[in-house]
Formats: sequence, structure tokens, C-alpha cells
Amino acid sequence: MWIPKKFAYMSLSEAHILLREIARGKRSEETVPVFQAYDRVLAEDIISDINIPPFPVSHVDGYAVRSEDTLQASINNPVSLKVIGRIYLDEVYRGEVKSGEAAYISTGCALPNGADAVTPVERVRERGGYIEVLRPLHPRENVIPAGADVKKGEKVFCTGHILRAQDIKLLIDLKKWMVKVFRRPIVALFSVGSELTDRFEEADKKKFDSHSAAISILISEAGGVPMSLGVVPDDTNAIISKLREGIEKADVVVTIGGASIGEKDYVLEATKRIGESKVVIRGIKVQPGRVTSLCILNDKPIVMLPGHFQSTLVGFYAILLPLIRLLSGLEPEEPCLTVRARLTRKIVIREFLSFDRVRFVRLMKVLGNYFAEPILGNSSIASVVTNSDGFIIVPCGRDILEEGEEVNVHLIRGLYPFK
Amino acid sequence: MWIPKKFAYMSLSEAHILLREIARGKRSEETVPVFQAYDRVLAEDIISDINIPPFPVSHVDGYAVRSEDTLQASINNPVSLKVIGRIYLDEVYRGEVKSGEAAYISTGCALPNGADAVTPVERVRERGGYIEVLRPLHPRENVIPAGADVKKGEKVFCTGHILRAQDIKLLIDLKKWMVKVFRRPIVALFSVGSELTDRFEEADKKKFDSHSAAISILISEAGGVPMSLGVVPDDTNAIISKLREGIEKADVVVTIGGASIGEKDYVLEATKRIGESKVVIRGIKVQPGRVTSLCILNDKPIVMLPGHFQSTLVGFYAILLPLIRLLSGLEPEEPCLTVRARLTRKIVIREFLSFDRVRFVRLMKVLGNYFAEPILGNSSIASVVTNSDGFIIVPCGRDILEEGEEVNVHLIRGLYPFK
Repeated sequence: MWIPKKFAYMSLSEAHILLREIARGKRSEETVPVFQAYDRVLAEDIISDINIPPFPVSHVDGYAVRSEDTLQASINNPVSLKVIGRIYLDEVYRGEVKSGEAAYISTGCALPNGADAVTPVERVRERGGYIEVLRPLHPRENVIPAGADVKKGEKVFCTGHILRAQDIKLLIDLKKWMVKVFRRPIVALFSVGSELTDRFEEADKKKFDSHSAAISILISEAGGVPMSLGVVPDDTNAIISKLREGIEKADVVVTIGGASIGEKDYVLEATKRIGESKVVIRGIKVQPGRVTSLCILNDKPIVMLPGHFQSTLVGFYAILLPLIRLLSGLEPEEPCLTVRARLTRKIVIREFLSFDRVRFVRLMKVLGNYFAEPILGNSSIASVVTNSDGFIIVPCGRDILEEGEEVNVHLIRGLYPFK
Repeated sequence: MWIPKKFAYMSLSEAHILLREIARGKRSEETVPVFQAYDRVLAEDIISDINIPPFPVSHVDGYAVRSEDTLQASINNPVSLKVIGRIYLDEVYRGEVKSGEAAYISTGCALPNGADAVTPVERVRERGGYIEVLRPLHPRENVIPAGADVKKGEKVFCTGHILRAQDIKLLIDLKKWMVKVFRRPIVALFSVGSELTDRFEEADKKKFDSHSAAISILISEAGGVPMSLGVVPDDTNAIISKLREGIEKADVVVTIGGASIGEKDYVLEATKRIGESKVVIRGIKVQPGRVTSLCILNDKPIVMLPGHFQSTLVGFYAILLPLIRLLSGLEPEEPCLTVRARLTRKIVIREFLSFDRVRFVRLMKVLGNYFAEPILGNSSIASVVTNSDGFIIVPCGRDILEEGEEVNVHLIRGLYPFK
């Protein structure tokens, strides 16, 4: 099959439809202990087998009483009740509160039989084994009914939910010791370029590959397991060998660099020489990053990211991030938090008008309001990204964003610290 | 020294001043490989030893020329230049471009001696070893000067900077193989309560401790290293023993539960029986969470978090999170991302008017705008937090927030997935 080097730029919405197709049937599941399930994506609905609390419990430290005993209580006509016992959290209390009686109860303890309300400790005074109640209590006053927190049979979480700290707590409360989650896709990656090295001994003569380290972090934060395969020179056979290794070991293979139309861009040629290769995306309508491509090789997606770092990041955001999300059980749309901010200065973009254009910005907070400072510089300037926290997407057709205009700043795990 | 059980509620700004005092002198540093420095906090300024790029490089694929040769070039009067060589990224080119000459050059390659501009490959055609230039080139046209990205001697990052993916890339480019970062503080924690267990065998009879798992995740995401010491009963000697273990092994000790004024709240008593204990914070002006306290014991901070889960989280946010931040080299203020959102319904709070009140909310995005849905329920209801992503802080004095009002939603790593 002939592989065209030239581009046929695809919009992101079209690309996402294709990515859904590619991911279909490729997700798999695993069962992990709940204590290791943080930040994983549920692959099952969680239904509670129990009520929380399992029985009516006191909401306060106080005295458990029968509310009917207190119907006539007032300041002038206090109702005197005999304290027959004391209930603490660590003990099972088997006594029953009968008419004319009360039991001291700590917050969170199960109400004793007979009692249906609790008068807070601040409202009464215990003297000589008796309390005096000064006002009527409603049935269930200061009582948390069984199942008030979670009901038996209730669906607590759905498939696709990302487990947060509070969810791990609830799963433990529900005694869900093992949970089914989507397996994190293994993402092999390597950088292409004869000028590059991954060996410290060569770091004086060649450029040490730094893209892989950054993209590995982003893969990991997106939910994948990065597997770095190092660096290969601009040589078709060397690229073929690494691609084969990646296809064998990983769910997704990522190449960085070498996939444009230049004389020494051999990645596309390498893919076609390996086996049944189908180029699915040959360029995207996003700049920087338009070189980003994807082919399917032996049923594995190969994502080709551009070599200039800003472009690499945009390619990651546009194609690799949604693919990893899909493979790990998440939706590809809205892949990150966005924050509304005002531009601190005008942006003029005359190039690639029919593309979405990405511009890196620094997010700043002044008196509780967010501002986005555009950090400009051509795509080979790495410090543009270092000076940024996030980016905005200027939709195709627009060439001017005004100072003070509201924009959505995209904040990606790995690029923004969220601390 | 006598320890008062009763509260002396402190505002968060006062508490933060004290936390700064407590953290002073307690930070320490370590040197780690750059490849393991992601999400760590720099403990040194990073000054570049090199220029990036190290020499002027071509911004495009094209031909390196002497701009003065092209001064007279026009469509009607093309300037013909002899192509004397080809420069690729992986080769060191030693030739010189003399008057009347040009050299093919790939993007990112060092400009050869003599040349000072590059004409893009799209603008010329090579034929029979010559190119024809159709318009004048400015000196440095399509050339990225040495140091354009980073200048030798430039301060690239300051102490206190959190290292993100793009920063790791730049550090590698700068050949900073080892970086000095703040050591992550070790935070020992245990839950207090005779009703609790941390043993699966007892999970049918007792409540399995689930707070520790959630708080451990939050500690880790805040930058600390959680060290769970399990569960102790409501028994002063047992608490003393765990506190001693924590003080010996960790930088901070956290207790969950048992620190209020109830009959069975023994944590404060335990601290005073160990050694020189100084209660620094006895309650905070935040509700839920007001029970949160802090003492210094043998020079180690002991943070006492309340036992009800919503209160535990607020205590974490108010005291433990800023303390961990300070110990790991960060500022305690603005400890998390906040997002402006509109309330989906009115909130009325009649209690604790002189306190800041925390209310948990679910953050929703509708057509690009954020809304905050209040999730109400008393502090013992764990599912309130499970149904939330973040929280708002209602400042003291206010009792009503209107539907549609703009609020700041606090999003904490661990409680919000940021994916």
C-alpha cells in the first residue's frame, strides 16, 4: 500500500470520531484492591450492598428518649427521665429505653430499642441519675435514619467514573475491597533524529532527548503507562525495529519527530514497510501540531507527534490524550479543565486561518480574577512552554483576539501543577 | 503543663502565621536526578550555563545564503547561487558559504560560516546545482539567534517552583542532570476510635477505618509522604504509644478523631502526657472542621483532625495542607486552584455566623460556563463529599448566598480529578 507523505488535514471533531472507532474493543479491565484504585477509572457500576448508617444513629452527644414521653415537656413542667445506661461507639448496647427512661448516647451510636429521638447534652442536665427535658422532641429529632448516607441497592458510582480520595473512602465504607477498573494502556514512545542521543556519554556531542521525558510524564498523568524505548536515528530500518518492539510490547506506539514531509522524515515509510499499515490521520487542522498523524499497524495505533516541542505538546493534546482517555474508559471530549480568563494583550494570528491555532499562555490570578498572558515565540522555542501554564485555542477563521477578551485556558495535568 | 480541652477558635490567617513559624527551619533539601524531579519543588535557583540554541540556527528547511548577495534580487532579476553543500541535523558541517554560494540547510541546523540568512525551500528551486533567489533577504531572516530560547547566565527557575513536564524537558536541555529539591515531609497518620479497625478480619464487627486512606491520598497529592500507622482505640496509653511512633518516624503526625471535648476524646490528654507539649491551635474559625487543633510535641507538629469526614477534609485544607506546603517549599496561601462558578441554588446558613463556613459543591460545566451545585447534608454524611468535586468558603458574617451568585470553587488535588 502506498503511503502519501503529503498532508490531508483533519479537524479534531473528525479525528475524535476516528479515535472512538480505533479504541473500540481495545479497552480491557482488571480488578485491583480498593487501596490501589485511586485515580483509576471504574469499569463497573458500584451498587451498595448495605445501608449507611446500617441503623438509626444519634447525630449528637445526648440522651436517647421516647419522643412521646416529652410531649408535655416545658420549662415550667419539665419531664424527668431515668438514665438507664450509657452508649459509646465501641460498645454494643443491648438495653431498651422504656417509657420514663433515657440513655446517654454518643454521636454516631445506634439508637437503642424503644428510643426514637435524642436530646442534645447541652439542653439537659443529668443529676442523681435523672435528666429533665424542658421541651417536646419530635420523633427522629437528632436521629440519622438508616440508609441516610447510602441506601442498600443504590447505585453509588457508574462505569467511567474516576476514583478520587473521597470515593476510595466510600468504597471502603461499602466494604468493596476489590474494584474493577480499566487497565491503563501501555504507551511505548521513542524519539527520531540522528542529532539525538539518550546516552549521557554522548550528551556533549549530541542533543540529549528531552521530549520523551516530558511526554512520558503527560502520558502517565493522562492515565497511560509510558514505556520509553529511547532514541533512533533518521534511518528507516532503525525506525522499523523500534516500531516492531513497540507494537509487540505496548497498546499504543508514539513516535516523536521524523513524520513530516522533509527529506529525512522516514517514519511514514517505516510504517508501510512493516505490515498492513493504514494511515488514518495524516495531519490535523491545528497549528502548531498540524504534522501529527496516526496509522494503524498490525491493529495497533501508532501516533506520530511532530518534533518541535510546542507542536509535540499540541499533537499530544489533540490526538494522543483523547486516545489514552478512550483506552482507559474516559470520554475524549473535554479532556481537561478549562478556566475562563481575560487576555492581557491582543493576539494577532495571520497564518493558518483555516486551522485551529493553539497559543500558550501563562495563567495569572489577580484579586480572584484570572488573566491569560500570551507567551509568544516560534514553535522551536522551548521556553515559550516553560513560561506557560496552559494554552488557548483560537478557532479557525479568527485572526484577532482583543486585549481583555475572555478566553478558555486549557489546563492539562503535567503542564499545570494544580497545587 | 495543663492542656485546656475547650476551644479558642483561631482565624485561618492567624493560623497561617503560626504555621510559618512552625515550619521555619524544618525544611530540608535533597538532590535528585532530573528524571525523577517531576512535581517536586525546587530548592535552588536554576541558572543556565549555556545558550539555547548554542549558535544561530535555521528556522526552516531552506538554503543558507549571504543576505548581501540577494540585495538586488527580484522576479525579473533573480540571483543565482551555487549550492555547495547540504546540512542535516546529524552532521557537523564545516564548509563556509562564500559570496555567490548557498548551502541546503534543515530546520534547526547551525548556520554555516559566512551565511546570515535562510531562504525557505518553498521560495526557490534547485536546478543543476544552482538556486535562483527572487527577492532580497534581510540579515538574520529565518535565523534563530544563539540564546534566543535561553541565554547563558539567565535565571530559568526560582526556588519554590513546582517542576512540570515542560520544566523537566528544559532542565534536560540545560544538562542539569541533578537538581536540588525540597525533601517531601513524611506525614504519619492514625485514626482514633474504639469502634474502628484496620483489620479485615474485624470488618464485620467494627467499622473499617476509611478516613486514613482518603487523607493519605490527599497528603501525597499535597506533596507529603503519607505513613499510615493504622488505628488506635479511645485509650490514652494507646494514643501515647502511636504518637511516640509518629514523632520518631515522621516530620508531622496527624490524628483523626478523638480531639474534641467529649468524654472519650483523649488525644489532647495523650499529647500532654508525652513531653513538652504546646497547644498552638485549639480550634479554628471554620465550620465544619472547627475542632481542628495543632500542638508541638518534642518539636514536631501534631495536627489533630476531626473525625466526621467533612470536618476531616476541612481540617486538612485549613491546617494540614498549608503545613505540608510550607515544609515542602511552597507558600501556604492560595493552596489550590479556584474556579469562578454560579450557584445553582440559594444557600442559607444560620449557624456559626462568626466562622468561615465550608460548603461542598459539585462543579458543572454548561456551554463553557461553570456552575456550582451545593451538596448539603450534615457533617456525618460521607456521600455529600462523594457527590462533590470541591467546596466554597462562605465568609463569616454572611448567612445567605443567592442563586446565580458567583462563588470561588476550591479544587484540591485528590478531591478533584483534573482529568
